[in-house]
Amino acid sequence: MATATVMLGDALADVAAEIDARFDALLEVPDDPRAPLYRAMRHAAIGGGKRLRPLLVFATAALFNVDKDRAARVATALEAIHVYSLIHDDLPAMDDDDMRRGKPTVHKAFDEATAILAGDCLHALAFEILAEPDTHPEPHVRAELILDLARASGPSGMAGGQAMDLEAETGDFDLNTVTRLQQMKTGALITAAVEAGAILGRVGPEGRTHLRGYAHDLGLAFQIADDLLDAEGDETVAGKKLRKDGDAGKATFLTLLGVERARAQCGMLVDQAVEHLRHYGPEADLLRAVARYVVERDH
Amino acid sequence: MATATVMLGDALADVAAEIDARFDALLEVPDDPRAPLYRAMRHAAIGGGKRLRPLLVFATAALFNVDKDRAARVATALEAIHVYSLIHDDLPAMDDDDMRRGKPTVHKAFDEATAILAGDCLHALAFEILAEPDTHPEPHVRAELILDLARASGPSGMAGGQAMDLEAETGDFDLNTVTRLQQMKTGALITAAVEAGAILGRVGPEGRTHLRGYAHDLGLAFQIADDLLDAEGDETVAGKKLRKDGDAGKATFLTLLGVERARAQCGMLVDQAVEHLRHYGPEADLLRAVARYVVERDH
Repeated sequence: MATATVMLGDALADVAAEIDARFDALLEVPDDPRAPLYRAMRHAAIGGGKRLRPLLVFATAALFNVDKDRAARVATALEAIHVYSLIHDDLPAMDDDDMRRGKPTVHKAFDEATAILAGDCLHALAFEILAEPDTHPEPHVRAELILDLARASGPSGMAGGQAMDLEAETGDFDLNTVTRLQQMKTGALITAAVEAGAILGRVGPEGRTHLRGYAHDLGLAFQIADDLLDAEGDETVAGKKLRKDGDAGKATFLTLLGVERARAQCGMLVDQAVEHLRHYGPEADLLRAVARYVVERDH
Repeated sequence: MATATVMLGDALADVAAEIDARFDALLEVPDDPRAPLYRAMRHAAIGGGKRLRPLLVFATAALFNVDKDRAARVATALEAIHVYSLIHDDLPAMDDDDMRRGKPTVHKAFDEATAILAGDCLHALAFEILAEPDTHPEPHVRAELILDLARASGPSGMAGGQAMDLEAETGDFDLNTVTRLQQMKTGALITAAVEAGAILGRVGPEGRTHLRGYAHDLGLAFQIADDLLDAEGDETVAGKKLRKDGDAGKATFLTLLGVERARAQCGMLVDQAVEHLRHYGPEADLLRAVARYVVERDH
């Protein structure tokens, strides 16, 4: 466990540095009236975040000895989608959040119009990165990566989950509906990150069953842990406002299961996630460490 | 000229029916909490609009005898991007418009959060459509279509132009800056539509020079005509609020050139656009008719 924690700490720091450097190069501020747009994208994309999705791309790609530059490009695209979704989710009309990753949200640091456009631009940039020949010389790999990401982020995935979430405050959601909501809202992009690593590794859909099982359980565990942190965490460590769901009377894993059952469920899902990796040797230790981290993190 | 008008009228009606049918099938309302999201997407995407970008895809693809179903898929993706951009542009934080295509804007008919998400979902859907094998059996064609669209809609294209437009009310823009702004904001997607037809037709980048020249001049002519309509048009026919730019004191082709020179410039650009098609025979008559329509339309 101690070794796994050290390994994960190093990996998270490496990934954070790599993703920051990629965004820094991609988002050079132009000397024209788009400067505020680029500064807003940099504000949101650089310096902050757990970089969990990029780490999953790297860790899965490493199972198949994928070239690190290719994995980094795909990881950056995934994170661009995640960052765009955070910018839009934080808007006054959505979750109306003032702080994110310990900094003012984009619409607070800039303005709402710039925040909407910065999100839209990061959204487009993600697909631009994936479609470029540098990402992978074989176009069918690029096309598959793009389909993976578009499905995971669109109305059947992340954005669809967010739309369900809007209804969660008024609707009378049961555990099945909340599970489906969270599988779409958070789980889809986490699964896409793991699948992207496998696509880069040229693993066909059949060969991805165990990895998909891992991602599925990890995604749900991650969300339950997030609900627990929202209820019990420290706002300074989290870098954002907490306890909003409880105040809004929203159905979540926590309101439906209670703290004790939620914590037990989270631990069980992590065990299941790790169990899905039983066919892999030490090369999957990083993926195992990620699963353990999900329950142990404090932000 | 009369024949061209009849031909164009038929073509516009056919394209409108085709695009409506495609969106109708794509956006079937699910029996779950995402129903309002899908209804919002349908509200924006079905029944309205000139469908100029889809028409350009069809008309260009027809030059190279591209399969009609493939052209229709790509045309729908292009229009999905256009529709998403209109939903976001109309938001209170952006242009704050209440009417679009003769109907309430999405945030008026639904709410702001749903409008933001409906735009994001149409954005993702566009790339999902292009990445699917049905769009073209050859993955390098799909990857090229995606790169074309992502570049045209991101920070170097449409969204970047929109960001410049936000600065146009406060900045002291000259004719060069306004031209660049409009080439990005409107021109990039019009060019992408024509390029997409050529990509489907397996025309290499060198072979697209004349078509790109046509699209470039058409895009600028279209924007000048839009400025003229904004100043002189009828709000009922336009289906949206007019004369907002003049009221906001924004630099446009019209404020910089005046009505007479703007009209002359628009006519000259249309002539140039048509001249770029000189190497094509009657198979390019529809593209020629589109160029003429740009100056003659009343909405």
